[in-house]
Amino acid sequence: MQHDMIFETAAAMADAARRETLRLFRSAGLRPDNKLAAGFDPVTEADRASERAMREILAERRPDDAILGEEFGPSPGRSGLSWILDPIDGTRAFICGAPSWGVLIGLVDSDGPIYGIIDQPFTGERFEGGLGRARLVDREGERPLGVRTGVTLAQATLLSTYPEIGSEAERAAFARVAGQVRLTRYGLDCYGYALLALGMVDLLIEAGLQPYDVAAPIAVVQAAGGIVTDWQGGPAHGGGQIIAAASPELHAAALALLNADRVEAAPVLD
Amino acid sequence: MQHDMIFETAAAMADAARRETLRLFRSAGLRPDNKLAAGFDPVTEADRASERAMREILAERRPDDAILGEEFGPSPGRSGLSWILDPIDGTRAFICGAPSWGVLIGLVDSDGPIYGIIDQPFTGERFEGGLGRARLVDREGERPLGVRTGVTLAQATLLSTYPEIGSEAERAAFARVAGQVRLTRYGLDCYGYALLALGMVDLLIEAGLQPYDVAAPIAVVQAAGGIVTDWQGGPAHGGGQIIAAASPELHAAALALLNADRVEAAPVLD
Repeated sequence: MQHDMIFETAAAMADAARRETLRLFRSAGLRPDNKLAAGFDPVTEADRASERAMREILAERRPDDAILGEEFGPSPGRSGLSWILDPIDGTRAFICGAPSWGVLIGLVDSDGPIYGIIDQPFTGERFEGGLGRARLVDREGERPLGVRTGVTLAQATLLSTYPEIGSEAERAAFARVAGQVRLTRYGLDCYGYALLALGMVDLLIEAGLQPYDVAAPIAVVQAAGGIVTDWQGGPAHGGGQIIAAASPELHAAALALLNADRVEAAPVLD
Repeated sequence: MQHDMIFETAAAMADAARRETLRLFRSAGLRPDNKLAAGFDPVTEADRASERAMREILAERRPDDAILGEEFGPSPGRSGLSWILDPIDGTRAFICGAPSWGVLIGLVDSDGPIYGIIDQPFTGERFEGGLGRARLVDREGERPLGVRTGVTLAQATLLSTYPEIGSEAERAAFARVAGQVRLTRYGLDCYGYALLALGMVDLLIEAGLQPYDVAAPIAVVQAAGGIVTDWQGGPAHGGGQIIAAASPELHAAALALLNADRVEAAPVLD
């Protein structure tokens, strides 16, 4: 696999998605009064335009790769590589005008994510990880990504997108961790994974995620030195319950609390 | 009162605060491992540097105005005008690296806020309202602020900074409103008021606020056509329980729900 071709293809996709999403972000066409007009769904139009633009680039440059996109589903391939696309992760933030949504571009092989981009078009930040890269490119230039270490659970900052996370049991598990950390914040969507990779926060815990929500974040966080698993310590790229941590120590401590209601609680760490 | 002098003074203050906050935002000096070193509190240093820079400008240009700042308290004046400063509103977001914090500059007379700026240094957005102005200035240029109207409670987007808002009774009151709207989001700090003024969201409900949290947001939201009161429908610039709404209809509907636990529930609308 030629890494440069992957990097260039992904950059072109992110550039195209940035154009399409910024064209509609905060536009009058996305206001609820328009959203209520019969048959017109401007949020879906923003999602679709972004994914369509990315798929056009793949069709031209990487026709043998498979694609899984939130809006247009799966397309088969034969290269052994799949692009996992979420054209707007955080649509709720998008329609509120808040800059915590992002464009997610993940590349997976049979073992899981190997490369990903979390792009925030409005702030102009591109978080990129995998295949030897771990960097943020923004208006100021480029800098390396890296998780912070040496933070104990009692000192940690924990993020989750919704306080009303998952099922009742999932909420209780989340609350056990939230009760032990210094600070819990909500509402950041995929931007939270970017902040973890940037060394600004320590833990993310979420539930009910889809594969296209997690492929790119996993690649970026892992490239920055972090750990992402499901709540049992297994692979996370299938979606569902996700925990991302800046260090093995924090991961183990949080995983133990998530599973503290189970008699057989013995988190598998890998 | 010369409006131009007010505008120029406030702009100089916001510029100075932007420099001071961006100097420390996401810097290694603000990471918790540094925060734990004896006697060093980089978050407070960012707050203080920002407020100090604003006070220096006021001392030079508006020596007769009073000042109330979060970090350095009240300073007397004799002009009848007071500058209400929050050098970093949303310190928790600031230390997480999330761009929802802001610099708040409010100007009040004996009746309340007459002018304000909500500045987001990282995104480069300055929301300004009062004394005939209602505008956003950002990297793209300048555009007018204006709330959106015609949104019913069932269609509305509601924001609050913390899901664990206030007391148990306050949480219950908030939940009555949250249960009736289309979308509730958390974690935006003062940026939520900016999004209301920009016409992107419809309601903000918060509790436990300080005067320096609300002076500038009140001015900006009112200049954009919105309404800000306390939960009884009275003046909000003293802080405490705050509701900000895009329209009188939404304000009345939400206020009725906030007070629905009271037998004497008769919201005072002004």
